[in-house]
Amino acid sequence: MIPVDWNSLFEPSLAVTRGWGSGHGTVLRNSRKVRIEWGDCDPAGIVFYPRYFAIFDASTAALFERALGLSKYQQLKTYGFAGYPLVRTRARFLRPTRFGDDVVIDTSISFNRSSFEIEHRLSHDGDACVECSEKRVWVVHDPATGGLKSHPLPEAVLEKFGRV
Amino acid sequence: MIPVDWNSLFEPSLAVTRGWGSGHGTVLRNSRKVRIEWGDCDPAGIVFYPRYFAIFDASTAALFERALGLSKYQQLKTYGFAGYPLVRTRARFLRPTRFGDDVVIDTSISFNRSSFEIEHRLSHDGDACVECSEKRVWVVHDPATGGLKSHPLPEAVLEKFGRV
Amino acid sequence: MIPVDWNSLFEPSLAVTRGWGSGHGTVLRNSRKVRIEWGDCDPAGIVFYPRYFAIFDASTAALFERALGLSKYQQLKTYGFAGYPLVRTRARFLRPTRFGDDVVIDTSISFNRSSFEIEHRLSHDGDACVECSEKRVWVVHDPATGGLKSHPLPEAVLEKFGRV
Amino acid sequence: MIPVDWNSLFEPSLAVTRGWGSGHGTVLRNSRKVRIEWGDCDPAGIVFYPRYFAIFDASTAALFERALGLSKYQQLKTYGFAGYPLVRTRARFLRPTRFGDDVVIDTSISFNRSSFEIEHRLSHDGDACVECSEKRVWVVHDPATGGLKSHPLPEAVLEKFGRV
Repeated sequence: MIPVDWNSLFEPSLAVTRGWGSGHGTVLRNSRKVRIEWGDCDPAGIVFYPRYFAIFDASTAALFERALGLSKYQQLKTYGFAGYPLVRTRARFLRPTRFGDDVVIDTSISFNRSSFEIEHRLSHDGDACVECSEKRVWVVHDPATGGLKSHPLPEAVLEKFGRV
Repeated sequence: MIPVDWNSLFEPSLAVTRGWGSGHGTVLRNSRKVRIEWGDCDPAGIVFYPRYFAIFDASTAALFERALGLSKYQQLKTYGFAGYPLVRTRARFLRPTRFGDDVVIDTSISFNRSSFEIEHRLSHDGDACVECSEKRVWVVHDPATGGLKSHPLPEAVLEKFGRV
Repeated sequence: MIPVDWNSLFEPSLAVTRGWGSGHGTVLRNSRKVRIEWGDCDPAGIVFYPRYFAIFDASTAALFERALGLSKYQQLKTYGFAGYPLVRTRARFLRPTRFGDDVVIDTSISFNRSSFEIEHRLSHDGDACVECSEKRVWVVHDPATGGLKSHPLPEAVLEKFGRV
Repeated sequence: MIPVDWNSLFEPSLAVTRGWGSGHGTVLRNSRKVRIEWGDCDPAGIVFYPRYFAIFDASTAALFERALGLSKYQQLKTYGFAGYPLVRTRARFLRPTRFGDDVVIDTSISFNRSSFEIEHRLSHDGDACVECSEKRVWVVHDPATGGLKSHPLPEAVLEKFGRV
């Protein structure tokens, strides 16, 4: 089941409990470029904002792909989990973008025990346009209920991030 | 960086400056039902979360349509504005929904001078699934720049909401 | 596996082989209304056409839901199939629609052995705007390959349509 | 106004009337790679087919961008037209694709007087997955009606394609 208790999700960061943050490249970052298309935009000629969240979702997947060396399809098979659904997100829209714009999304991650936090910054020509943060939970199938339940991130996954 | 100072964005509410909130039905609410479709869902079988924001955007439009008695297309013509783009949004995902679910979205609004705040609550069978808040700005075309600029909400619009 | 041989999919229609079409209400029709939303439209102010196909996909599901009395989620569980993916579609766009339009989609079906044909007609104020035809295949999971394979439509499903 | 008369749109191809097709590189082709994302897929784990049409729409824009050396935003400004909406499309789905797949879209064009025909072929690892053809019309704003009307493609645009 997707966790209902918002506050209980804030656990001490692994960055602290594992002694991270002391300069061993423990926070992975990724950067990708995306073209804003005609079909991403609304009658005002600017991005229809739900499309930004689709771009951010793919940016989170791209960061995992870079760290693990596997596409999301392969990740699910290799690590036996069912995904990392959102428990919350928030975004600020600073400048609109429009079709034809090539935007850059910079994404960074920090880990908790069975969840992680993502920061996205979408910019165009160097100007920040959207800032977004996400909290996601690592989930596995729960045979007992037929649903999903949260699960600690595998060490094998964390090591891949720590190594980068 | 995601703005840490979330609260500074809240301007003194018109509910205060105009003496609202004293029981004259000054906060409009609207409720609508939406069917979650197969195509709204991802390989985990649950809603792909950017689709929720499309549902919320339409829910904001539905609330304005109910108050003003005009579709969004007619609103833009009648009140000479260019839309009410988001400046920020945040959402919590409490329970997943899946295709075949008929969900209910309850939407409420409160006004500032040239912006307004929206709260959405999406529920299924009475259980809250997603909570979302938005801040949007009333914008008009700016002949000087060819772009958009914020503008105080017209009295005629506020009156329509106040009357409901 | 989704069938590769396009032409082999054109089988003699069940309407013929089963003696249908002789006036026993053997072709089910369904009609539904959809609001075109701001986010369905592009910078030209008219529907971004891929959105029509999402509307048509939901219209096919709605027709099955009406005939079977089950949501698509329940259908998959009840009849043990994996879906009815498209093998081809075609559409003509006669008149544009725009946000705020309430359009009507009329959908009809005719059956082959393991596939079926759908016709959608989307209209606004009585004027045809889009005409679309689909050919879809009934598929089940194939334990041998881990993929999907076509399968004759269950009699129980056909009977539900014939009865309406 | 978007043309209503489907058949009248089939004009003798410019490839004939201008003596094209005699080997001077008069049919432009373009090829682009797209990653299929998690959010492009449905609960069956394969692409939700309306997403293919969004990919094809962007592929048509990419071909024009390559020929004209301008993004679609710049094209609209430079050539004073309002877009090239579809009058019809058809697609065959030969093999499914799924999230993590890097697919290639090969796109080619041939011109009529005020319309053009596009062929897309989407493939994965060399295997054709989707074939799609489109007919689009070159439209301009019609001051008389406030709507859109078809217009012959500018010579300046055709020359850009002929040169490539």
